[in-house]
Amino acid sequence: MVNSESTVVSECLKLKRISIDTNYENVVYLHRECSIYRAEGFQALAKIEVFTNGHSIQATLNVVEDQAIVAIDQIGLSIDAFSSLGMPEGTSTYVRHAERPESIGVLFKKINGERLNKVEYNQIVSDISKLYYSKIELTAFLIATNQDEMDREEIYFLTDAMVSCGQRLNWFEHTVVDKHCIGGIPGNRTSMLIVPIVAAHGMLCPKTSSRAITSPAGTADTMEVLAKVELDDAALSEIVRKHRACLTWGGTANLSPADDVMISVERPLSLDSTTQMIASILSKKVAAGSTHLLLDIPIGPSAKVKSVPEAQRLRKLFEYVSSRMNLHLEVIITDGRQPIGKGIGPILEARDVMRVLENDPRAPDDLRHKALRLAGRMIEFDPDVKGGDGFSIARDILESGRALEKMNAIIDAQGRKAFDHNNPGLAKYVHEVKADKSGVITSIDNLQIARIARIAGAPKVPGAGVDLAFKLGDKVKVGDTLYRFYAEHHSDMIFTMQECQKASGYTVGESSELLHAFVEY
Amino acid sequence: MVNSESTVVSECLKLKRISIDTNYENVVYLHRECSIYRAEGFQALAKIEVFTNGHSIQATLNVVEDQAIVAIDQIGLSIDAFSSLGMPEGTSTYVRHAERPESIGVLFKKINGERLNKVEYNQIVSDISKLYYSKIELTAFLIATNQDEMDREEIYFLTDAMVSCGQRLNWFEHTVVDKHCIGGIPGNRTSMLIVPIVAAHGMLCPKTSSRAITSPAGTADTMEVLAKVELDDAALSEIVRKHRACLTWGGTANLSPADDVMISVERPLSLDSTTQMIASILSKKVAAGSTHLLLDIPIGPSAKVKSVPEAQRLRKLFEYVSSRMNLHLEVIITDGRQPIGKGIGPILEARDVMRVLENDPRAPDDLRHKALRLAGRMIEFDPDVKGGDGFSIARDILESGRALEKMNAIIDAQGRKAFDHNNPGLAKYVHEVKADKSGVITSIDNLQIARIARIAGAPKVPGAGVDLAFKLGDKVKVGDTLYRFYAEHHSDMIFTMQECQKASGYTVGESSELLHAFVEY
Repeated sequence: MVNSESTVVSECLKLKRISIDTNYENVVYLHRECSIYRAEGFQALAKIEVFTNGHSIQATLNVVEDQAIVAIDQIGLSIDAFSSLGMPEGTSTYVRHAERPESIGVLFKKINGERLNKVEYNQIVSDISKLYYSKIELTAFLIATNQDEMDREEIYFLTDAMVSCGQRLNWFEHTVVDKHCIGGIPGNRTSMLIVPIVAAHGMLCPKTSSRAITSPAGTADTMEVLAKVELDDAALSEIVRKHRACLTWGGTANLSPADDVMISVERPLSLDSTTQMIASILSKKVAAGSTHLLLDIPIGPSAKVKSVPEAQRLRKLFEYVSSRMNLHLEVIITDGRQPIGKGIGPILEARDVMRVLENDPRAPDDLRHKALRLAGRMIEFDPDVKGGDGFSIARDILESGRALEKMNAIIDAQGRKAFDHNNPGLAKYVHEVKADKSGVITSIDNLQIARIARIAGAPKVPGAGVDLAFKLGDKVKVGDTLYRFYAEHHSDMIFTMQECQKASGYTVGESSELLHAFVEY
Repeated sequence: MVNSESTVVSECLKLKRISIDTNYENVVYLHRECSIYRAEGFQALAKIEVFTNGHSIQATLNVVEDQAIVAIDQIGLSIDAFSSLGMPEGTSTYVRHAERPESIGVLFKKINGERLNKVEYNQIVSDISKLYYSKIELTAFLIATNQDEMDREEIYFLTDAMVSCGQRLNWFEHTVVDKHCIGGIPGNRTSMLIVPIVAAHGMLCPKTSSRAITSPAGTADTMEVLAKVELDDAALSEIVRKHRACLTWGGTANLSPADDVMISVERPLSLDSTTQMIASILSKKVAAGSTHLLLDIPIGPSAKVKSVPEAQRLRKLFEYVSSRMNLHLEVIITDGRQPIGKGIGPILEARDVMRVLENDPRAPDDLRHKALRLAGRMIEFDPDVKGGDGFSIARDILESGRALEKMNAIIDAQGRKAFDHNNPGLAKYVHEVKADKSGVITSIDNLQIARIARIAGAPKVPGAGVDLAFKLGDKVKVGDTLYRFYAEHHSDMIFTMQECQKASGYTVGESSELLHAFVEY
């Protein structure tokens, strides 16, 4: 036997990048026979710390049996993990038993039903933003803070913590306006109309948007059809200073970074928790420097919010947390019974938006009308505008061509891409879904239409998606084309046809069955 | 544009086994450029169905950028997923958008705070046992059913569902006895003493045990030092018929398979929920065909249960669910202030057990005494034994050598391995941890001693672990060796020394500070 009193650790593994995208989870790959730090000793602990001179990350262990993937003297890191560690391949790397993130003790307090305070939310959110949590730990946090598990003051703590752990922009103006929709309505591309309208009125509206998460297109995906949307901080500031507005992707600015990490679990789980939605939306807006926010809550049987009392409850929560965050909030409850506009998918939606801006007779009237309503309310954030005058100011800006002019200026500033709405570059396979009887369109399922557009390839394939020919209340005859879908790849086309056969998303019936709008606005 | 009305799907990918152990989660690897089913189209859905002629599994998608791992025309499956699909490499394989497991709707009811019924628990547990749930979905279920989220009838529903989705043994006898400890006490290897004692009394005790999950040794790990523990069903039945007992590993029999899947998340999360513990223990026992169970609940400051009221609450829940499952249960509350016996780790514990059976004067007295107490209570399950007589019957069986004789018969029947407790094959590095002052041992931390033994290599290295020289109440002088630890690998030895320096697990103080036992039995 060897007495070990005075030995020191010295052995190491060579760093290797493993080209596997594990979607926001740091994964470390060790060979099962790895001679120095045998994987078995670590296996039950599941998470290990990987460190090199001055850099360290925590990662979940996968055990590998193939030296072609990771050799016995190597340590493999997934794409995210490799980039977090930030060291070149071949670097001498060490591992040790990871301490659990400090905030796990606090997480277990929440799991066991206790209320957490502001400091505790800061600890958890800070660890999440640093990717210290595994997917399992993240899920535990999200379920333990789901819906009724948090009171409204806790939602504020969470929101504030999410702002604190990232960058926070300051535009040095009194009024920085933004709008947001809680989502769920395909084709609802009002931001690309509202931003040029309110900027033409002179308001500061530096709009950063997300890409689609579960929808067939986000504002960033659609805007990308017309212009570059990934701009560095300097370029963005310059554009906003000159044009009072932008329409860019928010992912580059490190605003509320914990939100992106949490979404990586919410998305595959299809978890749509009120508490996390409020914290997510408000933390992004406050971090982006907004002072005034218009929030669109659509109601409908296949919308996220299904009844007026539910919408009112949500409104109160948004108002409470906004007020704690010193953000001026107006909530508008809208008709969410069906998709907005005709096209669903980046190119199809860009087409509709450009037609509205050009006052083209083919422009979808519902998209135009909704955008004017919302823009009007935002214009009323201007202290010099009388309550009720916003809509007509917005309409004048649109009809006079000033909105189009502003949009063109923004597009040119961000970097114009070739796009002609009379000849949009749609995907190569097209399939028509027909009415199987005559009658009146009595319902259109937002979720199913979105699902069909996604399976067809949107938003990854910009020219894929769904183009609606009929809307609620329209009369159809058997054999009429209800909508077309576009797909670029043969397999996508087949999958989409199968999905449409399962459920087209349309119901044809009697006009008396037509669901009335919950809200007239 | 191509009109697609009459095309059928026909393209496929070649199956490849990817030698990565993802620990009970099916993972499918697709190349980012995969021409037929581009990974991007699937990415947001996260879970896809992989199918071939007559076989199908669901798996979580990881996107790969390296053709050495998975080529553009291949589909890679992790070790578990490949074995679930059960087809050879090169098989033509198809993928499609996975339907979410049907029970996810039910899971969301629970997440939103509703009570589930028996049918609903069956749906969820059946999907879990088939590996249809991703780690994220599993975590969501475990957190949503944690602690106070379930009432006692729901715990029964869960337990019953866990039994239903696996094999259930029937021994065709009135009394089939078993014992179980809720865990958390290192060295607590009483089963290997109780089983031969009660079998020598003539009771049927077909004991299947688990391997260590978070502890330095399970009964199966320790028994494996002395004999084979992985036996097929036929061999096990034969041994039990002949010797009235066995001491084998329970993992081969497909008893409560959902339990193993849930443990794969509970372990890395260190989630120790009462509800899941009850369902896990009782489902395994009922599936194994037990009719009578003795349950050991140790109490102590570093045990799982820290107070008598807490132990009583737990007892009532166990009693309720057992009664609904028609299992006769006796609960015994024991002293859990410190480890039981001296050795911690498979070989060290096997040494202690054999010394008790051989009535060796070096045998740890606390292990011997506790085993006799528990065996006595089990013997009283025998209707012919008077209440209170069990202990002396057990002691007679041990002292007369009949317990050793029975143990030798079991070892021979299962397949004896060479082991000499006078010369156990301990790991090659040994390190002594010394008292830094004189006084009385006032506390020994179960968790820290277990952690030290695990980091030293137990149970994967059978000869690794901790050997205690002093127990609670013993007097020590500065420089006395409190315990030795054994490690086989240099890195393990270094990690263990670091851990002991952080916290030795021992407190030396005044005899007045000694914590009294919560329970005298």
